[in-house]
This record gives sequence, C-alpha cells and structure tokens, in this order.
Amino acid sequence: MAPCRIALVSRLSDAAEAGWLARLRTLLPGERIDSLRALDAAACAEVEIAVVANPDPADIARLPNLCWIHSLWAGVERIVAELPDLAVPLVRLVDPELARTMAEAVLAWTLYLFRDMPAYATSQRAHRWQQLDYRRPEAVTVGILGLGELGRAAAGRLNAAGFRVCGWNRSARAVEGVECHSGPGGLTHVLGQSDIAVCLLPLTAETRHLLNAERLALLPRGAQLINFARGPIVDTQALTHALDAGAMKHAVLDVFETEPLPAPSPLWDHPAITVLPHISAPTDPETAAAIVAGNIGRYRAEGVLPATVDLRRGY
Amino acid sequence: MAPCRIALVSRLSDAAEAGWLARLRTLLPGERIDSLRALDAAACAEVEIAVVANPDPADIARLPNLCWIHSLWAGVERIVAELPDLAVPLVRLVDPELARTMAEAVLAWTLYLFRDMPAYATSQRAHRWQQLDYRRPEAVTVGILGLGELGRAAAGRLNAAGFRVCGWNRSARAVEGVECHSGPGGLTHVLGQSDIAVCLLPLTAETRHLLNAERLALLPRGAQLINFARGPIVDTQALTHALDAGAMKHAVLDVFETEPLPAPSPLWDHPAITVLPHISAPTDPETAAAIVAGNIGRYRAEGVLPATVDLRRGY
Ligand SMILES: NC(=O)c1ccc[n+]([C@@H]2O[C@H](COP(=O)([O-])OP(=O)(O)OC[C@H]3O[C@@H](n4cnc5c(N)ncnc54)[C@H](OP(=O)(O)O)[C@@H]3O)[C@@H](O)[C@H]2O)c1
Ligand SMILES: NC(=O)c1ccc[n+]([C@@H]2O[C@H](COP(=O)([O-])OP(=O)(O)OC[C@H]3O[C@@H](n4cnc5c(N)ncnc54)[C@H](OP(=O)(O)O)[C@@H]3O)[C@@H](O)[C@H]2O)c1
Repeated sequence: MAPCRIALVSRLSDAAEAGWLARLRTLLPGERIDSLRALDAAACAEVEIAVVANPDPADIARLPNLCWIHSLWAGVERIVAELPDLAVPLVRLVDPELARTMAEAVLAWTLYLFRDMPAYATSQRAHRWQQLDYRRPEAVTVGILGLGELGRAAAGRLNAAGFRVCGWNRSARAVEGVECHSGPGGLTHVLGQSDIAVCLLPLTAETRHLLNAERLALLPRGAQLINFARGPIVDTQALTHALDAGAMKHAVLDVFETEPLPAPSPLWDHPAITVLPHISAPTDPETAAAIVAGNIGRYRAEGVLPATVDLRRGY
Repeated sequence: MAPCRIALVSRLSDAAEAGWLARLRTLLPGERIDSLRALDAAACAEVEIAVVANPDPADIARLPNLCWIHSLWAGVERIVAELPDLAVPLVRLVDPELARTMAEAVLAWTLYLFRDMPAYATSQRAHRWQQLDYRRPEAVTVGILGLGELGRAAAGRLNAAGFRVCGWNRSARAVEGVECHSGPGGLTHVLGQSDIAVCLLPLTAETRHLLNAERLALLPRGAQLINFARGPIVDTQALTHALDAGAMKHAVLDVFETEPLPAPSPLWDHPAITVLPHISAPTDPETAAAIVAGNIGRYRAEGVLPATVDLRRGY
C-alpha cells in the first residue's frame, strides 16, 4: 500500500511536535508523517489526514484534499468554535488512560473536599487545633454533570469509595450504582441533592453558563463544586457570590474563561476557591499516540473511522 | 443471669460519657452500666469490667475486683504507659469501620501528595499558573510501616488506586499485592524505595524515634511522609532538617509529641508540613459501641475474651 500523507497541525512548540512525530512515526512506519511546518504547497495538497492539537484554522485551510482530522485532545470545543464550517469528519481522543486519570483527579479532589482539607489548611495558618465532625461517605451525595467517557469513569471510582453518586446527562443513561437523570428537570433534581457537584460536561451553546446563580441556588446549603470540564460552563461571578454569602462552602476550579488564569484575577486569592492550572487529566503522549495510530491504522486497513464529533451539537 | 457491673472510666466530658453510656445500655440491657463518677466505694468493689477512654490510673485503682478492661480506642499506648503493672487483661477496639476510615484517610492524603496539592496551593498563593509533570500511580511506591489492622486496610486501598505498595512489619506477613518485609533489614529495604512512607505503627519502646535522621536519610530524594500513628515515632527535628535541606518534599502529620500541638510550635508554619489535628480516623461511637457490647456479650455468654494487648510488647 502506498504511504498516506499525514500532517501534524498544532500550535505546540517545535519540541513538543517533535515528540508526537517521533511517536507516531514509530507506530505507523508505513506512512509519511510530517509537521505542517515542514510542508510546501505541493506536499500540503497530498495530505489526507491531519493530526491536530489546537490547530490554527488558517493551517487547516492549507490542506485542500484533507479527508479527516484526528484531535490529540479529548476536548474539541475550541476546534468546533474556530472551524464551525469544517467539511471533513473530526475524531477526538477517547483514551481509557485519560478517563482513568480524570477519575483519579475527581476522587482526589472529592476526598480533598470531603475530608475538609481546605478548612484544616485554614486552621493550620491560624495555629488552631480544631477537629471537625466526620461524616461517612455514604452520607454524602456527589452529583456528576455529564455522564460521558470521563463522567462515567469518575462515577465508578466515587461509588467504589463509598459515596452516594447521582448523575445528569443530555440523553438518558443507565450507569451501575448511579442514580441517573436527564433533561432540565433532571438537573434540578441532581443539583438539589448534590453535596459535591462535579462538572464533566463539554462546553456547548447549551452548557455555557449552565451553572448560573439560579442553578447554583438549587444546591444544598454548604455544597461544594468541582469544575474539571471547561471554565465558561460556570458563571464565575455567581459562584463567588454564592461562596461569599456562605450558601456554598468551597470550589475547586481547574478550568477558566481565560487560560492561563490572568495574574490579577481575584479568583487566585479567594479563600473558598482552589485554583488548579488545568492539570486534572493531562493527555498521556504514550497512550494517546497509540490510540491515534490505532485509529489511523484501522482507517487505512478497513476504511472505517471511529465515532466522530457532531459539529452542530458541539461535542 | 445476674447483671454484671460495668464502669465507664474516662477523662471525657460528662456529655461525651453520657453518649457512650446511652449507647452501651441500649446494647446491653441486662447489665448495670454506670460512669465511675457515679459510683461509691461499695459499687466500685462490684465492678467486673471497665470500659475506658484515656482513663486516669487512679480511677482504675479504685476497682479492686476488676476482671478485664475494654478500651474504646484502638491505640492503647497511653494506657500501657500509664498502667505498666496492670494485672488484668486489656482489650482494645478493633473496628472494621475505623480501619475503613483510616484507609480512606491514607488514600486521601496520599492522593493529596501524589497529585501535588501542596505545590499547587503554593502556586495559587503566588498567582502562578504552573503545570507539574504527571506520573502514573504505578510509578510511585508507597511504603507502609506497620501491617496491622490499619496498615493492611490502607495497603488494600492504595493498591486498588494503582500505587505500588510495599510494607514493613515486626513479624513476617503476607498481604495480597504488597511486597512485605520484616526485621531491621526489611525497614532499610522499604524506606529505600518509598516515594511516600505511611506510618501506621503503634508507639512502643522499639518504635519511639524510629524515624530518626539516619532512617529518614534512607528515603529516596524528594520522598514524602504521612504519620497517622503516634507523634513520637518520628524525630520531628530530623524531619524538619530533611525537609529544609530539600532531601524530603513534604510531610502530613496528624499526631504529635504533645497534643493539641501547642500554638507556638514551629510546625504550624513550616511550608512543607501539613498539620492535622488528630482526625485521620476518629472512632465512630455507633460502630465502636456495638463492637464493645459484642465483646462484653460474648464474654458474658461464653466466658471468652478477644485477643488482648501484650503489655510487655506494648500493643
Ligand atoms: N480539565 C481537563 O484536564 C480535561 C481533560 C479532558 C477533557 N476535559 C473536558 O471534559 C469534557 C467531557 O469529556 P468526555 O470525554 O467525558 O466527553 P463525552 O464522552 O463527549 O461526554 C460528554 C457527556 O456530556 C453530556 N452532555 C453534553 N451536552 C449536555 C447537555 N447540554 N446537558 C447534559 N449533558 C450533556 C453528553 O450526553 P450524551 O450522552 O447525550 O451525548 C455526554 O454524556 C470535555 O468536553 C472537555 O471539555 C477536561
Ligand atoms: N491518627 C489516628 O486517628 C489513629 C486512629 C487509630 C489508631 N491510630 C494508631 O495506629 C496504630 C496502629 O493501629 P492498628 O489497629 O493497625 O494496630 P495493630 O493491629 O496492633 O497493628 C500494629 C502493627 O504494627 C506492627 N509493629 C509493632 N511494632 C513493630 C515494630 N517495632 N516494628 C515493625 N512493626 C511493628 C505489628 O506487627 P505484628 O503483626 O508483628 O504484631 C502490627 O502489624 C495504633 O497503635 C495507634 O497508635 C491512630
């Protein structure tokens, strides 16, 4: 079989691109894989597959005979926003190792909130020896918003850790050990009982500012929030109001409207907000490259693509 | 059967004693259970069983016909130290719910260290967006010192979370999924590979200042320590030296030589130490009372005691 031309299209550093290229070339020795940066117009015209990481739309436009695109990331909200008229199929990364890492992060920061680590840190700063009441995990309900690849993996680990878990999803879903709800009424129901709410929704027109003042007010008093999905899903001002008013206790935010979070942002100093620099579930280059290469290999051998992103739906 | 006289002997508040008395009386309706505070000398002479929580040795001396003692706590180092010549058997609390809570705490604070929460908190205070490298849990070895009721429960949860787990114990033990060592050479071996060391040993003459400068120096560079057992097992000065020198990265301490940790202690302000107020595994009065009542019930029905504390060994 003649080699297929594959271009890596990214806004990564040259060094980061070199790492991905080396991995992909090892895994797909029969193909011609280059950075778009190394290709002239003639070579660009031969490119059938683009492997992308946060690509510049102008770069994608340089590939007139592109057949499909594979994203190295799991979240494709930026590509969807920047390439709304994309005419070729878009495949995103679905990596069990990414789901495992995210589920681990959800468990880690749920335990952080559940075992009162923020309050004990405050006590430590005040040299105050203060024991807080312990509740068993069965007495605490964690509500997961979005029961996709990541949400389901997180639900499983929280369940195994003894928490009561409920979840909310666009389409109806059955997840073992999880009380599942869907539709707008379902969200009211899930938020109403979530001592800890975990956001793992994709960012779409429907989820932008989904967690606004009205919805946050549905949470039980003293509820806590973990947002590991995308910043704009939460109305930050409504959240800080709820925290300042004592209606909510604490929030862990890994994602923000603008990233990196600008140094002057008041979120950095908010005593009831834990700021993380988008580290809850980093892509593992090793497993991700293997999955991308596997998908390309299957396409080349059998002509089939994995499930593709629904551009109108937005994820 | 004639009721048996049982005395609650503690340095708890009257309110806390009342809670325990109510629980035990409900569970053992055929016995006479009172606080020692309510008993005169004649009643004291009738007491067969003392249920104790941090008892004053002088109070125990008031019970001339005592047959045995049941501690409401799992750790009996203080009773052993204060009553070295105790002539009656001492039973301690062995509660699977306590082991579960401790294992949960070990998992929670291991994830706290593993997912770099202390470093991210430092970054947040500096308004610094800094992503740290992620390592998978299989690449991290957690060494558990003491494979008793609590250590084994902790090992199981760490194992399920994907960490490499090794352990050290006085007598040789086989624990599923755990590389087990014993004896002094075993300690060298376990410390030498522990990225995170978790202390769950009882405090005895042998374990006092076990983790001194020499032993801490065996840990790999950048190792972290969790002490959820007893404060004097760790030489605090040696620990702060190792942290200050950068040989060790962070320590989570739930227990101290003096508790509450005095307000002037420099540990409170140490940037590489997380101070917790002895909350890793609080006794659950509900499950603990049921276990104590069960043990007393079996003694009354069959005349047998559960395994007792070896006063010479110290635990
Ligand atoms: N912080 C990080 O490090 C990090 C890393 C990776 C990913 N992420 C984020 O995590 C998000 C989720 O990833 P994933 O792999 O789990 O995505 P996914 O498999 O596509 O799952 C998304 C889930 O959300 C549900 N959903 C979508 N729109 C909804 C709406 N309007 N209301 C209710 N439910 C809705 C979907 O429902 P259906 O089942 O009906 O489709 C689906 O179950 C990504 O989009 C990305 O933003 C963050
Ligand atoms: N922070 C808290 O909230 C909290 C709560 C409860 C308990 N604790 C502490 O946790 C400690 C452990 O509790 P546990 O229920 O697991 O006790 P345990 O069942 O008696 O187990 C103690 C283990 O340590 C081992 N050991 C004793 N001395 C040793 C030595 N010199 N070298 C090596 N190994 C040694 C024992 O070995 P063998 O198998 O050979 O006997 C045993 O496996 C308690 O003593 C208490 O101090 C703390």
